[in-house]
Amino acid sequence: MERGYERATIRGIAAGAGVDPALVHHYFGSKDQLLLTALQPAALEAMPQLIAAGTDGLGERVIRATFEVYEGIHPSGWAMLVGLVRSATTHEEAARMLRDAMGSGGLFMLVEALGLPQPRLRVALVASELVGLAMARFVIGIEPIASADVDAIVDWYAPTFQRYLTAPLAGDDPGGGPA
Amino acid sequence: MERGYERATIRGIAAGAGVDPALVHHYFGSKDQLLLTALQPAALEAMPQLIAAGTDGLGERVIRATFEVYEGIHPSGWAMLVGLVRSATTHEEAARMLRDAMGSGGLFMLVEALGLPQPRLRVALVASELVGLAMARFVIGIEPIASADVDAIVDWYAPTFQRYLTAPLAGDDPGGGPA
Repeated sequence: MERGYERATIRGIAAGAGVDPALVHHYFGSKDQLLLTALQPAALEAMPQLIAAGTDGLGERVIRATFEVYEGIHPSGWAMLVGLVRSATTHEEAARMLRDAMGSGGLFMLVEALGLPQPRLRVALVASELVGLAMARFVIGIEPIASADVDAIVDWYAPTFQRYLTAPLAGDDPGGGPA
Repeated sequence: MERGYERATIRGIAAGAGVDPALVHHYFGSKDQLLLTALQPAALEAMPQLIAAGTDGLGERVIRATFEVYEGIHPSGWAMLVGLVRSATTHEEAARMLRDAMGSGGLFMLVEALGLPQPRLRVALVASELVGLAMARFVIGIEPIASADVDAIVDWYAPTFQRYLTAPLAGDDPGGGPA
């Protein structure tokens, strides 16, 4: 967080924690993997409340929780996500980690816990929306998305998230949950 | 198209066209700029029909036209877009080009020609959606988006494009067009 994602090193993080860099490599692997592990507790912490609040207004709550996880708890959290997406554009290993994180991450837990049909498709669509938002806001700098406040982002994007999370969607996966 | 975006060079393109590479640099600048210029006629060609068909079902038509422009007319078109987005993650020059293309490109023309309010915001939201779709499908490889056929992509994404293009949106820009 102090140095930003690009400039942070496993060696520097290990020095800050007073441990051998080899230990960090052993337990966390790459810098990308360390980031995902660091973000996980914050993401999981938000889950019980999101699950308890049900599907009405879920899209808005997921966006706000995402901003809280990425910006509130980790000031450079979005920069780290963008770093990971940037890695994914050139390293298959980072792309695979992003895919794995989607399959086992908080978002998938949320969709499953709410009994929503086609959980894999919903997580994929929400993930593509989040990546598009992060690229527009933090990488390409598309206005007015880049400098809008979070309330405006919520107004624009929440209905999209709501539909991807809860509406009936075409596809083979049999339905059955709330729509 | 023969070599893919990453492996194509200005020198090779100039050799294929039988001209001096300096001439290509002079008229088109970078490889990214050359790509945008090459895609432009196809994008502009799709415009009159899109404009004439009006706002009902516009979201679906924009997605299909995008796939036609990127895949039909240019077989490696999406790879080129992804290459440009990849450049944008590390080069501010490529990010600036993407922003400029949005401000003056076919999508902006379309939104303006249809008299839709807040054209800049609509183009930004559609662009973020397209970037997220391209990243999910071609870079990160998020299933089922990565291997779905175009009809499934249209089913999932068209309502989002439709809302970003035509629905009332929060923001300062005064309304007035169709909603």
